[in-house]
Amino acid sequence: VQIAILAYEHLTALDAVGPYEIMSRLPGAETIVVGEARGPVRCDSRHLALVADAVLDEVTAPDVLVVPGWSGAEQARLLRRGPVQEWVRAVDHHTTWTTAVGTGAIVLAAADLLTGRRATTHWLAIDWLGELGAEPTRGPVVLDGKYVTADGASAGIEMGLTLAAAIGGVRTAEAIQLLVQYDPQPPFDGGSVETAPTELVTSMRALRRFIVTGAPDGLTAARTP
Amino acid sequence: VQIAILAYEHLTALDAVGPYEIMSRLPGAETIVVGEARGPVRCDSRHLALVADAVLDEVTAPDVLVVPGWSGAEQARLLRRGPVQEWVRAVDHHTTWTTAVGTGAIVLAAADLLTGRRATTHWLAIDWLGELGAEPTRGPVVLDGKYVTADGASAGIEMGLTLAAAIGGVRTAEAIQLLVQYDPQPPFDGGSVETAPTELVTSMRALRRFIVTGAPDGLTAARTP
Repeated sequence: VQIAILAYEHLTALDAVGPYEIMSRLPGAETIVVGEARGPVRCDSRHLALVADAVLDEVTAPDVLVVPGWSGAEQARLLRRGPVQEWVRAVDHHTTWTTAVGTGAIVLAAADLLTGRRATTHWLAIDWLGELGAEPTRGPVVLDGKYVTADGASAGIEMGLTLAAAIGGVRTAEAIQLLVQYDPQPPFDGGSVETAPTELVTSMRALRRFIVTGAPDGLTAARTP
Repeated sequence: VQIAILAYEHLTALDAVGPYEIMSRLPGAETIVVGEARGPVRCDSRHLALVADAVLDEVTAPDVLVVPGWSGAEQARLLRRGPVQEWVRAVDHHTTWTTAVGTGAIVLAAADLLTGRRATTHWLAIDWLGELGAEPTRGPVVLDGKYVTADGASAGIEMGLTLAAAIGGVRTAEAIQLLVQYDPQPPFDGGSVETAPTELVTSMRALRRFIVTGAPDGLTAARTP
């Protein structure tokens, strides 16, 4: 089972590392981090870099594709036609599972892979899934055929467990969960729009364009080539 | 606030990236990944590398030290006297918080920093904390003075939130939690010794030395220089 994780500048590290930590422990799995160029790829908060061990052309038929999300204003270019979008569309022909965490789903939707499909994404980006033809759906992990999307950081880990069970069986997934000791007990209760303080949700919504795309009028502008 | 994350070969990526993802978003935080050498550091499952942006000598007085855990047999050397142990002890004189995730606590304990203190670690390593003079304590996140330890992968994220609240206030921690959407809903229930199937716990205990130290007679052998 080859698992390709797409790495690009300004990705959210936890969106990539959560699924990695689970799925790389699947017996027989070969996980590979793929980027436009080989070498360090700096994450959204800029003080951590992951290494892309392969370039796009070297990974043509992964069994699983994982597209992590980003935050910050710089990644609108991922939504435009270009090498990354072309690669995502090409490898999707070969995947058993095409997946995304957080705003990674927007990349899949911009590649027209989620048209008419149920999918989730970061709560600040959920409306855009609809603009791009998907059916925005609440939930930590949403499955529609081979397309699997996770809404946030913890959901990326949970998506990894769900896929580990689908690929290797529930007992294997449980073993990995126990090995990494994924037994969450959040110290605060505010990890979702439903549980967070209302004024926090409102103020983040107001800053949405700075947090997610940087495009003043949202996704339409961001997609203009 | 300078936050130093120790990177070393065979570290568990999620142990480092969980706290990073939370604490790097603290206003005014400068997070830095520190290693024995600058450049890529390959994680335990070998298919992902993080980049050390600084070497030990360049980071002498961080406010927060984070030591991630490892898995696999190769890291016994971290428990011996050497540059990493000396650095951990030296920077501890300057920290406001000295912290570890998973087996990272064993590194702190081997540096004699947890003697007589309540601490937690990966469930397969918990006895060794006692052998090294700490007081093994159950819990996702355990605080004893400035020493904070987290038992597993999700607990590393939760430790980040706890420290974010201590440093920046609860409202800041809540904002970060909502931004990364840490709202766990595990698909399976087996993330702890208490909830996992008994035979899974038993078989992992039998493999403990392969999973955690590789030393046939445990930590004592591993520490012999």
